[in-house]
Amino acid sequence: MAMASTPAEPKESRVDVLIIGAGPAGLLMASWMARCGIQTRIVDKRGTKIYRGQADGLQSRSLEIFESFGIVDRVLKEANLMAQACIWNPNEDGILHCSNKISLNYYTPEVNRYYPRVLHQGRIERFLLDMIKEDNDLSVERGILPTSLSINEADVEDPSAYPVTVKLRKVSEEDSDGSVDDEEVVHAKYVIGTDGAHSWVRKQIHCKLEGDSKDDFWGVIDIAATTDFPDIRSLTILHSVDIGNMLMIPREKNLNRFYVQLTPTQGHGETTERFDRSKYNPQLILEAAQQILRPYKLSYSRLDWWALYQIGQRVGDRFESHNRVFLAGDAVHTHSPKAGQGMNVSLQDTYNLGWKIAHVVQGLASRSILATYEPERRAVAQELIEFDRKWAGLFSGKPIKDLMDEDGISIRELLQVFTQRDMFMKGIAIDYNTSVLVVKESINAANGDLKHDVNISSVTKSHQSQVQSNQTLAPGIKVGQRLPSASFVRQSDARPSHLLEPLLSNGRWRVLVFTGNIKDAAQSASVSKLVDSLSSPTSFLTKYTPPSSSVDSVFEVLAIHSTPIGDVSIFDFPEVFRRMDEKMGRDYWKIFADGKSEASPGVYDVLGISSRGCVVLVRPDQYVSYLGSLDDVHALDEFFAQFMLDQHAEGNKS
Amino acid sequence: MAMASTPAEPKESRVDVLIIGAGPAGLLMASWMARCGIQTRIVDKRGTKIYRGQADGLQSRSLEIFESFGIVDRVLKEANLMAQACIWNPNEDGILHCSNKISLNYYTPEVNRYYPRVLHQGRIERFLLDMIKEDNDLSVERGILPTSLSINEADVEDPSAYPVTVKLRKVSEEDSDGSVDDEEVVHAKYVIGTDGAHSWVRKQIHCKLEGDSKDDFWGVIDIAATTDFPDIRSLTILHSVDIGNMLMIPREKNLNRFYVQLTPTQGHGETTERFDRSKYNPQLILEAAQQILRPYKLSYSRLDWWALYQIGQRVGDRFESHNRVFLAGDAVHTHSPKAGQGMNVSLQDTYNLGWKIAHVVQGLASRSILATYEPERRAVAQELIEFDRKWAGLFSGKPIKDLMDEDGISIRELLQVFTQRDMFMKGIAIDYNTSVLVVKESINAANGDLKHDVNISSVTKSHQSQVQSNQTLAPGIKVGQRLPSASFVRQSDARPSHLLEPLLSNGRWRVLVFTGNIKDAAQSASVSKLVDSLSSPTSFLTKYTPPSSSVDSVFEVLAIHSTPIGDVSIFDFPEVFRRMDEKMGRDYWKIFADGKSEASPGVYDVLGISSRGCVVLVRPDQYVSYLGSLDDVHALDEFFAQFMLDQHAEGNKS
Repeated sequence: MAMASTPAEPKESRVDVLIIGAGPAGLLMASWMARCGIQTRIVDKRGTKIYRGQADGLQSRSLEIFESFGIVDRVLKEANLMAQACIWNPNEDGILHCSNKISLNYYTPEVNRYYPRVLHQGRIERFLLDMIKEDNDLSVERGILPTSLSINEADVEDPSAYPVTVKLRKVSEEDSDGSVDDEEVVHAKYVIGTDGAHSWVRKQIHCKLEGDSKDDFWGVIDIAATTDFPDIRSLTILHSVDIGNMLMIPREKNLNRFYVQLTPTQGHGETTERFDRSKYNPQLILEAAQQILRPYKLSYSRLDWWALYQIGQRVGDRFESHNRVFLAGDAVHTHSPKAGQGMNVSLQDTYNLGWKIAHVVQGLASRSILATYEPERRAVAQELIEFDRKWAGLFSGKPIKDLMDEDGISIRELLQVFTQRDMFMKGIAIDYNTSVLVVKESINAANGDLKHDVNISSVTKSHQSQVQSNQTLAPGIKVGQRLPSASFVRQSDARPSHLLEPLLSNGRWRVLVFTGNIKDAAQSASVSKLVDSLSSPTSFLTKYTPPSSSVDSVFEVLAIHSTPIGDVSIFDFPEVFRRMDEKMGRDYWKIFADGKSEASPGVYDVLGISSRGCVVLVRPDQYVSYLGSLDDVHALDEFFAQFMLDQHAEGNKS
Repeated sequence: MAMASTPAEPKESRVDVLIIGAGPAGLLMASWMARCGIQTRIVDKRGTKIYRGQADGLQSRSLEIFESFGIVDRVLKEANLMAQACIWNPNEDGILHCSNKISLNYYTPEVNRYYPRVLHQGRIERFLLDMIKEDNDLSVERGILPTSLSINEADVEDPSAYPVTVKLRKVSEEDSDGSVDDEEVVHAKYVIGTDGAHSWVRKQIHCKLEGDSKDDFWGVIDIAATTDFPDIRSLTILHSVDIGNMLMIPREKNLNRFYVQLTPTQGHGETTERFDRSKYNPQLILEAAQQILRPYKLSYSRLDWWALYQIGQRVGDRFESHNRVFLAGDAVHTHSPKAGQGMNVSLQDTYNLGWKIAHVVQGLASRSILATYEPERRAVAQELIEFDRKWAGLFSGKPIKDLMDEDGISIRELLQVFTQRDMFMKGIAIDYNTSVLVVKESINAANGDLKHDVNISSVTKSHQSQVQSNQTLAPGIKVGQRLPSASFVRQSDARPSHLLEPLLSNGRWRVLVFTGNIKDAAQSASVSKLVDSLSSPTSFLTKYTPPSSSVDSVFEVLAIHSTPIGDVSIFDFPEVFRRMDEKMGRDYWKIFADGKSEASPGVYDVLGISSRGCVVLVRPDQYVSYLGSLDDVHALDEFFAQFMLDQHAEGNKS
């Protein structure tokens, strides 16, 4: 390697989005950017991707997100499905026995089509990387360390500015000779810190993690276990008499994960002795597990990964700086791994953020929408750590001594929390508050929950309107929550489908028009009036779609009708639901029939929609923005006027 | 390119299996060889793989086969599911209308878990190639033409001989300079001719196609259609008044396939004029389709592929020569493409043949098992062309003139055949006759259907025994048919599964032991007795498994019990069902519970198995060989003694 012959300035470049940290949250951010065609770089200080250990739980909502990016089939093929949870504790004679078996294998298509599964983080990263590569040249630059970050505050509200400056340095041994060739300066419009629990980006923007970290110590080992413990392939929660507790997770390929309590607490959260991290190794974790599992035997044929951790539930006091630098994932919330939530909440952070940044960078929307990220995701993080405190407490709490009494209470509590946690853990009960992007009962209350409403531009404020959702039109659809899963039938080919299936992650808004029976004259007239409004040159559909873009590039309009499927064809519906594209041909995929049959209810009944129908507006991340009647033909125009930018107005495009 | 400087002998080499032709049948053969570790070459005269057109229909049984090779997820992701068939014909006023819609979308897990789908052959070839590459170095040698084939008849019965000699020549333009470098001589143990309808291998072994080929001419075009025909995304069968008939198949990615009758017959099978192939082009096929489809409009944005064909149902008079050279797929049976059977029957030919050749080459079995290929697959081919004659006839038959009468009859017939065809077309009603591999009622009749019983070695004959199946023990399982699909639950992790799911294509036989309730003393005693017999040094399990191989490498023993799942664990079952492998660890995946619940019947009820249980022997290709009681502990020993080779006997291994 030659030394740089002359001292030169480090090279400088610009990029729209710089992602620091290529774990699942960073890679899902990169996926959005690739899919939306945003110029992006993603760097990671590690020299290689990870191949084992780390997070592994995949909740239902994460699988829906993978579906929307077209990779769920790979996950389902490899991930282990946990069909059963077993609770083990001492019986009256103090001998371990299985007191409860709980089926996790209930299929509720109205709630979710996917069961929770387990697959190690490295495979998820692989699937995301493969997908990004198919969409775009984007690949992770590894062995890159950020060394400084500054924000030019004067420029932060200028959509065309690159106000964030980050210095990067190569750390890989082969290439680094300490010369300035190894340094570069990047000017970015937006920087995303997805750099994990020890986040460097977090420190740069002076974000503090709040919460306690007092708790006992646990060891984790991933092993191919050899044992005579009968429930080794079920999710098992095990309380021993007095030597600690354990959580056992059956993983892909004959692997098992053991969470092993190393320092049982004596009372409420106080450890018996000072914990010396350095004295632990996998053998000691295994020995602790062997003690806890007695009289069953435990050894292993292969050790895959191990770690030590102390539970600490903490949330950042801020998730962003100037809505230019954002934190996501472990960088801004930490919690125990036992709920299997880590990877999921992290993925959902950037699933929330990605399309918003894409919209702003593409000049489709004002920066005001970025202010919704922190309140939406901070509330989820707080809910997560509150749940985790309760959940992890049930594992770490006082060991059962008095078999006649304490045991009974403990198990009852555990079962109760286990059952209640379900919707939350699946990630599908998340309810975003009213904001510029979510219209619940009245838009006047819309920005009340935004911490940073100073960031909402005056353009936005002048457009505030009286748009309201009418939740009674579809009680099964909750404004602020993700669109529920419900089955219907595609009109063109009679193929069964699901409400979320056509909602791919490509940055588009969806207007779902529940038309009712279009053979009914009154319904047909309502639909015609709505479609006329949609088709007018002043409608949001025209106004906010760039003239050079293809139809449907910002908004897709879907029809879901309750006419008997055999009585109509797609040609009975207005053109807006079945557009022609010169390259792609006819769009056959946006008109759906109710799907009612002898065997199952239709989507109208499942969601409580009457024969009068309704209109549902769904964000690019599948959350419901608005729910109104067919007759409110201008509600969506008013809604989008709050933050979308007129693509036909002179000089309004950023 | 330099000329070869000295004339040299063409290079010579040996290979266990040489496959000529790399279409779906050839590639499935190669898949078996890769999975079983058989030394193999596969050559194709075409310089590249195909990217469009050709076969596209995938029946349910083919999807089960793909599942057994681990690639069904890729197929399901890309293939178009046809949920509905529409029948169009003239109404009383002579105007086209849809007279019938038939749902194809019925889920019958007891019959099959997969709906028929459509995906072009090139993608299937890609999935098979990717899978083969993962297993093995094997890749297709393209641009290779066979020029001669000879069989040394003196050696054909010697298992260690390479009696088939094939000369190969390079045909790719860049490499070929006419020198002997471009020629080579290959000595093979077995040669498989999967080289299509104009098979070269077929001619070498003097196989003649029998049957007629008198029929009318059809054109095929694959287009991205632009039309106002409402059922363009359904499988549509269309009879026009007098200008020909049409079959329309909706394909992946907005494509449509049109089968267009070009020369409507006047009476019964006689064409109106001599057909001049050369005058046809895609434009003329499209024009014919436009005429037939009036008053609907038809044009296209993209032409993907086109072809002309004349229906001809023909079957080879022999499928093999000396059980050393075998024909499969279109090389040995041709028929109309309208039933969507071509790729499926071809895949199933080599799915039948592959494991048998692997067994013989591996020295596990005598050559006698190879004699079952022709009778098993010739019967299927004959059934196929008989069905196709009837089916294609309904398309090509006399156009409907008398609307009052002929129409009605024609539609009724069509519907009747359409409904009846179902099981056959799905490929799951195939019933192999009694043979050395299939024991129906009495093994004495076993070889009656074999045409080439001269090939069955005397060793085999001397082992003929009195083993009989007892069909009444499990009326839902038919000896000779593929094991049916039925749901059950895996014991170790309570995961729902299906009878066929654990039966991967890896060349292993499966012994399914339906144990009944093992908490019942009598059942437990029966199972113990059977397991003792299986575990004895003289049992087939020991005798026919090579001493150096891992456990389960030839036979896998599965338990399916009817004990309530919570009352037992895998450790209540004998070791033979849950073996330990040093490398893989414990086998948790071979013990299953009945799966009966409030919502669904258990596998015992579905298959009609009593509390006494039974034993089912399944071939490596998932066909049922034998069905008997738990008490017939030596039946399987006798069965396998017919053709398996003792792996512990001196000098008996080929």
